[in-house]
Formats: sequence, C-alpha cells, structure tokens
Amino acid sequence: MSPTENGGRLSLNQITVPAWSVQQAVEGCARHGIRHVGLWRERVAERGIAASARAARHAGVAVSSLCRGGFFPAATRAERRVRIEDNRRAIDEARALDTDTLVLVCGPAPDRDLEGARRMVEEAVAELAPYAAEGGVRLAIEPLHPMFAADRSVINTLAQATAIAEQFPPDRVGLIVDVYHVWWDPAVSAEIARAGPRIFGFHISDWIVPLPDVLMGRGMMGDGIIDLRRLQQSATAAGYAGPIEVEIFNRAINAMPGDEVLVLMKERYRTHVA
Amino acid sequence: MSPTENGGRLSLNQITVPAWSVQQAVEGCARHGIRHVGLWRERVAERGIAASARAARHAGVAVSSLCRGGFFPAATRAERRVRIEDNRRAIDEARALDTDTLVLVCGPAPDRDLEGARRMVEEAVAELAPYAAEGGVRLAIEPLHPMFAADRSVINTLAQATAIAEQFPPDRVGLIVDVYHVWWDPAVSAEIARAGPRIFGFHISDWIVPLPDVLMGRGMMGDGIIDLRRLQQSATAAGYAGPIEVEIFNRAINAMPGDEVLVLMKERYRTHVA
Repeated sequence: MSPTENGGRLSLNQITVPAWSVQQAVEGCARHGIRHVGLWRERVAERGIAASARAARHAGVAVSSLCRGGFFPAATRAERRVRIEDNRRAIDEARALDTDTLVLVCGPAPDRDLEGARRMVEEAVAELAPYAAEGGVRLAIEPLHPMFAADRSVINTLAQATAIAEQFPPDRVGLIVDVYHVWWDPAVSAEIARAGPRIFGFHISDWIVPLPDVLMGRGMMGDGIIDLRRLQQSATAAGYAGPIEVEIFNRAINAMPGDEVLVLMKERYRTHVA
Repeated sequence: MSPTENGGRLSLNQITVPAWSVQQAVEGCARHGIRHVGLWRERVAERGIAASARAARHAGVAVSSLCRGGFFPAATRAERRVRIEDNRRAIDEARALDTDTLVLVCGPAPDRDLEGARRMVEEAVAELAPYAAEGGVRLAIEPLHPMFAADRSVINTLAQATAIAEQFPPDRVGLIVDVYHVWWDPAVSAEIARAGPRIFGFHISDWIVPLPDVLMGRGMMGDGIIDLRRLQQSATAAGYAGPIEVEIFNRAINAMPGDEVLVLMKERYRTHVA
C-alpha cells in the first residue's frame, strides 16, 4: 500500500480501541499500516513507560501524542502544586515515549469563578513551559467543547487556547484542534489560520444527530454532520502537516473488534477527511 | 408582599410547569405574585390566542415573551418560504398576546454548511424585521449553547446574535440572554455590555454537574455552577430592566406540582439571582 492509500498521516488514539493494551495498539497500527499512535498515560502505566516506548519503536509506530496533562485549577495553592507536579511527570513520560506532544485538558473551575480558573490555567502553563522545553516536549492546549466547561476544561475555544499559547515561543506551546470540540465555532476557520504553526495536533471523529451522549457520543467520521474535509484543509492550509488522530469515545465503536475499527477508520478517513 | 420580595422582575416561562395550561399558568403566576409569564405557541394554540390574551389580562399577568419563532435554514427556497410565513404568524400571535417580544430559535443547517445556514438566518431576519416592526413586535434572537448547533440553532454565541441584530434599529432586533446557553463564553460579560439596549430578555436556570441530559438537564437556580448573580448584574448594568424569565427543561422539576415550583423558584431567585 502507498502512503496515500494508508493515509500516511493517520493516527490511532488508543481510546478508540480501549480493549487494546499499548502493545496491542501499536501492533494493530503496524498490521494496518497506520504509522502513528496517540497513547494515554493510564494505559502506558499498565505496560510500563520504557516497555511501551520499546513496543512502539519495535512496531515502527511513532507516538503522535500523549494524553493527557492539565486539570490545573484547584481551590488551594497546595492542590494546584500537586497538579503541577503531576504535569511534570507527564512531561517526563512524553519524553520517555519519544513523543514531542503532551495534550493538555486544562480542567474545570473549583467554584463558580471561570475567569479565576482561566488565570490558574495560564499560570500553570507558564510554570510548565520551561520544563517542557528542556525536555523537548511541546504543550498542546486542547480547547474542549463548551458543554465540558463545567467538568473538564475552562478552555473552550481555539481563540482562548491561542491567546495563552501566544505568550510563549511557537514551537513550545500550541494547541490541539479536535473537530468534535470546535466544529460549531463561527470563528473556526479564522482561528485555525491564526493558530498556524501552533497547531500541534488534529483530532477527528464526528458529531452525531441527535447526540447520543455528551461524553460517549462521538461518531465515526462520516456518521455525523461535521464538514471534516473542510476543517482538515483549513488546518493543512495553516501549515499543519502532522498526524491526524482518530479519537472516538463511543460505546458501540469502542466495543467493536479493534481490527474492524482500524479498517473502518482508514476507509472513512479516505472518504471524508483526506 | 413588596415587589422586591416578590421579585418584581420574575417571570415564569410556562415550559417550567408543562402540566399547566395557559389559563393555569397565568392564574398560578397571579396567585404567587409573579407579574410576567413567557408563553409557548403550541400551548397558546390549545387555548386559543384571543382567550389566552384575555386570561393573561384578567389575571393581571403580562406576557414577557412568546416562544418561539425561528428555524429558518432549509434546503430549498420553497421550504424557507414556508418557515418565513410561519414566523409571520408567530409575529401576529405575539401582537395578539400583547407581548412585544418574539423569541427566535434560529434553527440548524440542512446540511454540513454552517456558514450557509447562518446567512439564511440573516436573510430571514432581514425579511421579517419590517413586518415585526409594523406590528410593534421585537425579534429576539436567542443564541443557543454550542451543543445545540447541529439540531436547534446555528446561532451559538452572543457575539453572533448581536452581529445580526446590529444590522437593524436597536428597538427592533435584539437578543435573549439565556444563562444556560452563554455562561461558559469567555466573552460573556463583554458581549452583554455590548448588546446593551438590544437585550430583550434574560432567561435563568442552572447548569448541573454532571449534566444529566443535553435537552432535559437544566437545573433550578442554585443547583448548578452558573454565577447567576454576576450575569444578572452584568445585564442590569448593560441597561436591561425587563423581566427575568425562569425557563427550566428538567424532568424532575417539570413533574413537580406547579405551586411548589413557583415557591421554589421565587426563593431561589432571591437567594441566587436578584
């Protein structure tokens, strides 16, 4: 198969096939000609960091990103300190896995003060950025859909993420464009163009109508209403040439045999995204 | 009871007590010293428009708004024409009910083209504005939370609604600030200030964590994480002095006896909003 046929940019975020261990995920990717994999810290911990890194290298699969750091805002200084330390470990893990990208899901507010929580995110990123840079790891702020503003992240638009990222060199702090989170934004095209070299990752899935579930209701590409190709072209035009990661939280898809998911996502990638 | 005690600005959106007819809703408001009611077209149609208007007048309860016009985008010109005609009827109904405010839920895109659908909304508002003005009815665009972008409205932020409204005189086209839809927006305070005299309504409920349901998961004021008083103060500082309408879609609350709901919402309004 040619790189084009394979979708040379395609990446499997391992949450899409949650039954697979890191070992199985990287071997599955290799079996299907998928050259990149997005790993989760919890799953990496099960296998061990060094063993996970070896498994990926042995399979010839590059780690496109590590999920996830973040969850910065907290009610007390002591608790915020705990979160920062956990993020330092996440940076160490990313480095050990030989990926240059740590995904940040920034966390909710500890109270009703969204603006205060957003300042805590900025302060945490500022504190972590030099440590990440030393390790050759880029911090990728992922804006989450506004429906997650109360429980997962107070960073809900590309504009917010870029405003934070722009306080740092463009090769150190940037963002993840996940179509599920940003497709609705009237400014999505303009903000993708603005983010340009700060786009450190591009995640795909689809928005099903009606939405089956807030958290577990993402669709396979083509099953929903997101104009995936247009968003991919916007990101590519903005200069993003990196992996395109399939990240689908969906009970039905997550229950399918992994090999079937990989066949399906390659087909849908070609038809709806590439 | 003094107006302050009553919450003189408080309004019951009748969807909050769906078991009540229009007659029961206006009588319930009168019984509890609530001076405003938001009515729904379907419920008004059950009772009849003239009879509904008489019932409200007789009870001494003002109709703060009529829900809802909108749903403008459609695949064909003919279908868009049908939607416009339905909105003309909604304007007539608002006038007959002696309310000056028609709430517009603008509708989803008929395809994947959000920008095209947003243009259809602008065109429809432009076509309806003169007819509404003749009837003394103001068009109030309600931005809906981005989680409704695929199935209810392509207008998802205050900034979008104001950008459309600003094409018309400030007393003719404006917007509804519904806290459930806009609380997450990093620009919420700035956009409320910008909207100023174009704020034609202020709707309250709360955002429960975790969200029990996308459509039916709104909370009673105080049960969630929205900083309601701050948003009310922003709207009031922007010049909005009109009714504050309680609009709660929630299976448990909607199943409560109406009189209990009104007692509870008055109490919560005083504690968390006024």
